[in-house]
Amino acid sequence: MSTGKVWLVGAGPGDIGLLTRKAEQVIREADLIVYDALIGSGIFSLLPKDAEYISVGKRSGNHTMPQEQIDQVLLEEAQKGKKVVRLKGGDPFLFGRGGEELELLAAHGIPYEVIPGVTSPIAVPAYNGIPVTHRDYTSSLHIITGHKRKGADYDIDFEALVRTRGTLVFLMGIAMLPVICQGLLDGGMDPDMPAAVLQQGTTAQIGRAHV
Amino acid sequence: MSTGKVWLVGAGPGDIGLLTRKAEQVIREADLIVYDALIGSGIFSLLPKDAEYISVGKRSGNHTMPQEQIDQVLLEEAQKGKKVVRLKGGDPFLFGRGGEELELLAAHGIPYEVIPGVTSPIAVPAYNGIPVTHRDYTSSLHIITGHKRKGADYDIDFEALVRTRGTLVFLMGIAMLPVICQGLLDGGMDPDMPAAVLQQGTTAQIGRAHV
Repeated sequence: MSTGKVWLVGAGPGDIGLLTRKAEQVIREADLIVYDALIGSGIFSLLPKDAEYISVGKRSGNHTMPQEQIDQVLLEEAQKGKKVVRLKGGDPFLFGRGGEELELLAAHGIPYEVIPGVTSPIAVPAYNGIPVTHRDYTSSLHIITGHKRKGADYDIDFEALVRTRGTLVFLMGIAMLPVICQGLLDGGMDPDMPAAVLQQGTTAQIGRAHV
Repeated sequence: MSTGKVWLVGAGPGDIGLLTRKAEQVIREADLIVYDALIGSGIFSLLPKDAEYISVGKRSGNHTMPQEQIDQVLLEEAQKGKKVVRLKGGDPFLFGRGGEELELLAAHGIPYEVIPGVTSPIAVPAYNGIPVTHRDYTSSLHIITGHKRKGADYDIDFEALVRTRGTLVFLMGIAMLPVICQGLLDGGMDPDMPAAVLQQGTTAQIGRAHV
């Protein structure tokens, strides 16, 4: 029996049009698709009917399947010789824990490939008319988790972020929004600095922009 | 005569497989393609033979066509009723000056659409096996221009960047590499911090990784 392989695929921020050509190709050829809750619904129309599916239901720290178990499933199914696509919202390597999922595969000598996706902290503002850099205003972009790790402090150096004078994007930050706003103000952010809160940015659901 | 439209399209970091479905579709239907030098060569195989082409030859500040003239071309050709694709390397809104190109269109009421691309500061490390975040090590990603604006200082607060304890990615930074390294060390960066220099990361040319 031949060894399987795992493709760690970024599905992009929701719009099916933002899936890459390579992602579409490996999805169509997959034996098993292990997907999480952040996948855009349109993308399901591309999925092959004869593949197996496992939903791991991951959404902002609320996992149906613990990370260790996801890692184990990828390993075991690839060891059975399957072509496994691990389909993740956005990009697999930006807060996607793709690094962790690969470690177990690498340790067991399972072939894998990473297919980066269009990443939401740049694409969602773009869909809402907001360039994340503009050479008259900013020369850096800072993408920070807005999600507190369970049992840990939300340990962000807000003053350092303000000092960079770059565009700041907090991901998955709705729950922590008051903490983030207060942190930035305490860190020296100009209270008149324009800001936007965006949700469901490239899906058919209307993006809610408060600028 | 009907009004034209401009699509501001991110071509991704080089690999044709990282072009999005939507980008491919608008490219195939374009009347005119205005492209820059950072486009991966494989992508040219997708371009329609009966379209017009304008190369603006942009590469790391070395423009064949000044930005103001690019903006003007997009405006005038769309006003002639053409479907114009402005094809840019990486993502149009991350140091892509997409914001500037849209301002003139918006001021003249020309319809436009932004199609974000896979962005190199995340995708190129991914192709080289480097996740830009990993929850055991970092909770933020910082993307900084490594390119000095002509006639201006390279005005980066290195100490603030070091204080964020995040992953730092300097784009287009080869020429400024000694300045960046010294700035980070002076800003308090641990001299043993792992670092990589990546070029041509997802193209057929071998990515040169020095970790």
